[in-house]
Amino acid sequence: MSIIKPIVLKIGGSVITDKDGELSARTEVINRLAEEIALAKKENLIIVHGGGSFGHPTANRHAIKEGLRSDSQKVGFAETHHVMTVLNGLVMDSLVWHNIPAVSIAPSSCIVTESGRIKSFDDGAMKMLLNLGFTPVLYGDATLDEKLGFTILSGDQIATYMAVRFDAAKIVFGVDIDGLFDSDPKINKNARLYRHLTLSELKDVQEHLRSPTKVDVTGGMCGKVNELTPALERGIQVEIVNASKPNRIYKALAGEKGEGTLIEKG
Amino acid sequence: MSIIKPIVLKIGGSVITDKDGELSARTEVINRLAEEIALAKKENLIIVHGGGSFGHPTANRHAIKEGLRSDSQKVGFAETHHVMTVLNGLVMDSLVWHNIPAVSIAPSSCIVTESGRIKSFDDGAMKMLLNLGFTPVLYGDATLDEKLGFTILSGDQIATYMAVRFDAAKIVFGVDIDGLFDSDPKINKNARLYRHLTLSELKDVQEHLRSPTKVDVTGGMCGKVNELTPALERGIQVEIVNASKPNRIYKALAGEKGEGTLIEKG
Repeated sequence: MSIIKPIVLKIGGSVITDKDGELSARTEVINRLAEEIALAKKENLIIVHGGGSFGHPTANRHAIKEGLRSDSQKVGFAETHHVMTVLNGLVMDSLVWHNIPAVSIAPSSCIVTESGRIKSFDDGAMKMLLNLGFTPVLYGDATLDEKLGFTILSGDQIATYMAVRFDAAKIVFGVDIDGLFDSDPKINKNARLYRHLTLSELKDVQEHLRSPTKVDVTGGMCGKVNELTPALERGIQVEIVNASKPNRIYKALAGEKGEGTLIEKG
Repeated sequence: MSIIKPIVLKIGGSVITDKDGELSARTEVINRLAEEIALAKKENLIIVHGGGSFGHPTANRHAIKEGLRSDSQKVGFAETHHVMTVLNGLVMDSLVWHNIPAVSIAPSSCIVTESGRIKSFDDGAMKMLLNLGFTPVLYGDATLDEKLGFTILSGDQIATYMAVRFDAAKIVFGVDIDGLFDSDPKINKNARLYRHLTLSELKDVQEHLRSPTKVDVTGGMCGKVNELTPALERGIQVEIVNASKPNRIYKALAGEKGEGTLIEKG
């Protein structure tokens, strides 16, 4: 394994797809991101993307996350995996077109979950890809599950898992807002952006933002960040940036001072 | 594992693509085959398809089969895998559309080769798919290789490997000619079709057809059949049928008397 620690780049489904549509990709955003990634020329980059309007509507319609309850869901599982590979295909197309040696790893081909959490991952191919200087690309997927039969494995969980497994220096978490706010910036114009948080500050924030109603007032960001905690505990930096705005992903990959939220173990 | 022994269906790249073009899929053939597969309603079916005008031209252009020799091949490797997933996507689209619970397994995500031969395969996901009654679909792919860095893994090798590993009853080998002939039927109008061969007869035929010039006079079929020998030795039937002609794949899957070449251990 190369001595350069990998960076894991997670790109949210809400960035590369229009979540109000169905099977609606933002190809212009995908192309811009590929350009930024190419420009940053990072060795040992692992990319993970979400499902957005490809994976989610199909998975919801067939209740795939809840597991196998009836034979009629099977084609729905097949369809959910298939539409995710279609979105991944659009991403791969753009990455390869930009001369990035990007190779997709289908999570459902090599990961089995148990009650929704990654149980086993055969990393043979992925290790070799990293050693040879390729950029592996994974995505939220419909996976086989030892307890549930099948379920949905989120891109967020995959990103954290890969960061821990391959001892990443950093996770760049590209979302469609500027970072972690003290309330939902899409609703509250006065929402305040956290620029830097330690892990213990993050835990205070999470505690505060979820009480007393237990609703995640940040518009889901707190829940998403929660998935990243195992990486933070291992000393891996997490930078949350707005991937919907030009140049933010480039800056985060290139190590330039960002405009989002940086979280560290402290 | 279900007690019904699986059938492995290999569909040649020359059937589902136009080998004279590039990235040229025969979507009408793909749809007809999906219809035949749906009609046959086979439990425990494993599908493997070739690369045709998707995988081959790209792989040849970058000498992917020969292994990693220069960094400039890396994007070529990425591109070869990508175009194979595009062809696979067209196949999956049609299978799912025909209500077949088909789930793609990306060979490069779970198989590592050594000098072009399958060295390790993580079968966790595939076993679960078969147990739950899904139809796994694999394809010829660009894979990581422990000796060569990377290489090309043919659909033929995958088909035999899966047949042996999952103790298949039969391999249905769908090609673009009627079966195994004593010369190339595309050149010689008087070529004679073998209807039934035992393994030892097959070996005599192969010996005969390759001498004295060592050229495979059957137009490559002898070489392809050679890849199937390990399955034949294990007692797995091989039926070579013309998948370019309607109804042949359906008949072979349904166990009806076929019009191709049946090879058995004898």
